[in-house]
Amino acid sequence: MTGTNQGIAYTLTIRCQIDNRPGMLGTIATAIGENGGNIGAIDIVRVDRKHIVRDITVRVQDELHGDRIVRRINALPGVVVTNVSDRVFSLHQGGKISIQSRTPLKSRDDLSLIYTPGVARVCRAISRDEENAFSLTIKKNSLAVVSDGSAVLGLGNLGAAAAIPVMEGKAVLFKELADIDAFPICLKSQDPDVIVATVEQISPVFGAINLEDIAAPKCFDIEERLAERLDIPVMHDDQHGTAVVVLAGLRNAATLVGKRLDQMRVVVNGVGAAGTAIIHNLLIAGVGEVTAVDRTGILNIDEDQHLTPMQRQIAARTNRERRRGGLAEALVGADAFIGVSTGNLLTAGMVQSMGSDPIVFALANPIPEGDPEMLQHYARVVATGRSDFPNQINNVLSFPGIFRGALNVRAAKITPRMRLAAAEGLASVISHEELSEEYIIPSVFNRDIVPAVAAAVARAAREEGVARADNGA
Amino acid sequence: MTGTNQGIAYTLTIRCQIDNRPGMLGTIATAIGENGGNIGAIDIVRVDRKHIVRDITVRVQDELHGDRIVRRINALPGVVVTNVSDRVFSLHQGGKISIQSRTPLKSRDDLSLIYTPGVARVCRAISRDEENAFSLTIKKNSLAVVSDGSAVLGLGNLGAAAAIPVMEGKAVLFKELADIDAFPICLKSQDPDVIVATVEQISPVFGAINLEDIAAPKCFDIEERLAERLDIPVMHDDQHGTAVVVLAGLRNAATLVGKRLDQMRVVVNGVGAAGTAIIHNLLIAGVGEVTAVDRTGILNIDEDQHLTPMQRQIAARTNRERRRGGLAEALVGADAFIGVSTGNLLTAGMVQSMGSDPIVFALANPIPEGDPEMLQHYARVVATGRSDFPNQINNVLSFPGIFRGALNVRAAKITPRMRLAAAEGLASVISHEELSEEYIIPSVFNRDIVPAVAAAVARAAREEGVARADNGA
Repeated sequence: MTGTNQGIAYTLTIRCQIDNRPGMLGTIATAIGENGGNIGAIDIVRVDRKHIVRDITVRVQDELHGDRIVRRINALPGVVVTNVSDRVFSLHQGGKISIQSRTPLKSRDDLSLIYTPGVARVCRAISRDEENAFSLTIKKNSLAVVSDGSAVLGLGNLGAAAAIPVMEGKAVLFKELADIDAFPICLKSQDPDVIVATVEQISPVFGAINLEDIAAPKCFDIEERLAERLDIPVMHDDQHGTAVVVLAGLRNAATLVGKRLDQMRVVVNGVGAAGTAIIHNLLIAGVGEVTAVDRTGILNIDEDQHLTPMQRQIAARTNRERRRGGLAEALVGADAFIGVSTGNLLTAGMVQSMGSDPIVFALANPIPEGDPEMLQHYARVVATGRSDFPNQINNVLSFPGIFRGALNVRAAKITPRMRLAAAEGLASVISHEELSEEYIIPSVFNRDIVPAVAAAVARAAREEGVARADNGA
Repeated sequence: MTGTNQGIAYTLTIRCQIDNRPGMLGTIATAIGENGGNIGAIDIVRVDRKHIVRDITVRVQDELHGDRIVRRINALPGVVVTNVSDRVFSLHQGGKISIQSRTPLKSRDDLSLIYTPGVARVCRAISRDEENAFSLTIKKNSLAVVSDGSAVLGLGNLGAAAAIPVMEGKAVLFKELADIDAFPICLKSQDPDVIVATVEQISPVFGAINLEDIAAPKCFDIEERLAERLDIPVMHDDQHGTAVVVLAGLRNAATLVGKRLDQMRVVVNGVGAAGTAIIHNLLIAGVGEVTAVDRTGILNIDEDQHLTPMQRQIAARTNRERRRGGLAEALVGADAFIGVSTGNLLTAGMVQSMGSDPIVFALANPIPEGDPEMLQHYARVVATGRSDFPNQINNVLSFPGIFRGALNVRAAKITPRMRLAAAEGLASVISHEELSEEYIIPSVFNRDIVPAVAAAVARAAREEGVARADNGA
């Protein structure tokens, strides 16, 4: 399963010099197949009387698997492996983004217009009124993707340098999906005070700040302090990106099963950055009751000794029925389950104990909280974080549109109501006619998503009074 | 003169709705000409029976001059000015750079390769060995153009936001001239400690740091501390960019007049950021004697009461003859004058008092230290900072090649010897046969410059032991 899901991420291109005689390719293909490799394209690089040089693309399960296959090919008589390139690594060579000039620079006249002496007039215009920076510089459309590398993907604290590829990847997504000019900023220090101070210092050139892969619980405080200090939108995507998509999916799932959000009880398992934001979002959206569960069991304000300040806040607003126990107890009679925790916690019995038409979002990565095929058998609607099952909950569905909308109206901040609006905008991409158990959330490459989310966010920003202009779109 | 020099920076496109009858364009053109406007292109936007709409491009001297001409056109019978656009401002709309994705993002497979799950392997590879960031991220070719806005061009302390257009302009120059991916970073604070701390924090994603438009004397300290703390090149361009070009020009001028640098006495007028760097460069290059002059007169270590620590350092290494007095006294018998001060200080008599074949670099902007035509009459070689006279000394001639060379060999720093090498590389672009009084320094758009400077810098970096790799080129 993991192999299928991650397959493309482990694709090798193996260059072989092969004796030029019949049957050789068959031998090689058999060797690859017998060792579990999945052959893709086969290209001829060059041919002479003695040899054929071929590039054979092979999907493998992981690096060890790839090494084994390469060794096996190399051991075949008449075959020499001359090069192995790994598609992920070759795509990352030199980085994934570049800077492009938007103005020509071919003549002295060009130089006088975009640099001295012409630029001096533009500087003076901004000095007279700083708001002019939004029209006369990149600020109108620029965003910093900021990380300290303390929680890189699911990999943990890898530090600033190792976080760069993720931030560059986000910059690509921002550009390709929402035409936002994002630049990666990876910070040496993991101290919240230093992070806040540094981001504030570099903020003048940016129109928005996307915090990314910063560990909980410090991420809450960092986001809050920056949002307070800066007059541009600040959002920690790990918290709110996923929470917006979850709410969009839950809205559509509720419509499908004919339940109203305010009559539903939702169990949220996992109270980290994403779980906390999901719970807040559900409460603001008017979900009837939330039961929050972490490793120690159901959060209960009557038993708050082991809770962090943030968890205590959640406990105070959830579990009005004062349930006790663990995940199994929480699920009895529940309308929906949202897991942002770890793999394989859910049993068939637990799902069966839920209320009618259970909705299960098993979002742990790469292994969901329950086997997706089992879940699909017992629950009415199932969503996961994986691309090889229906209903993938992926924050890529929300952050490009949220920031696009905020930048379009030059929003001073991203408010909870703007995030609710984003969820509604995202949910609305699927019409009631299209809605089905296997289609509660649109797919990442649906081009309607960013305009729908951006428009909803911009509208909410205007209603909230945080929109300062309308940059169009 | 200033009009000619800055002309292109004040170009208006005036859209007029004109009665459709013969003779109208002549009337408009006459009105523009009589008011001192210089007509460029004239385009037809649309025509109907009653009106012709035209865009008339006019070079004007300054904003007031432009306003006068527009009012004058608008007052003509049968003519209505419907729009006036200023070419500098229209080119700056939305900023001068954008982010470009270097990888396609069209399918789920693309997403798996450049984002999750594929990117995780790249993160782990960097986490295992941080040097991998140079091959697997943009670090190999990325540069921050950093300013606090404390000395924007010659305009003074305009602050961070007003500095953005200059930094974007530099990013365009870096990209177009040296294929370096530069991003503008403008800092809120002007406190040296905060500047140093912030740049250090954001350094992981950058391969080099170009400090820009930071006021003296704090710029010296900021550059030194950052160079010490970071393992990537740091250079304050206002100091060293111009100094490299000056040395290149002086080398070629000396060759032309048949003098050896170690037998020359050079007067440097102005001891700010650029002047200080020029003096250090001349001394390291082996110039025989330097006489430094500031507003209070010749720097003299015997009279060091009014000197700043940096000036005292210079006084200790210059004026071995213990000359006293002002600029006039300094120039008697001197071989060369280099001015980075203010306009119109030099008289014909002062130039005549210099030694044989005087070399005069009058670099004050926009008005040189002496009238260029007067200087050309009395001096053998004249250079200015202006593009409308021969021998323009412009830091654009050096910084792209210096950083290109440093990045190519992944230099850990930029040493004084690398800067000398840059000057030699730049000087060498003009062959001995081509060398003439009017051609001691190549023009900005000469495509030989960046490769010559970069190669010289890379070679010096290897010799100095600060090169860590060879990225090619």
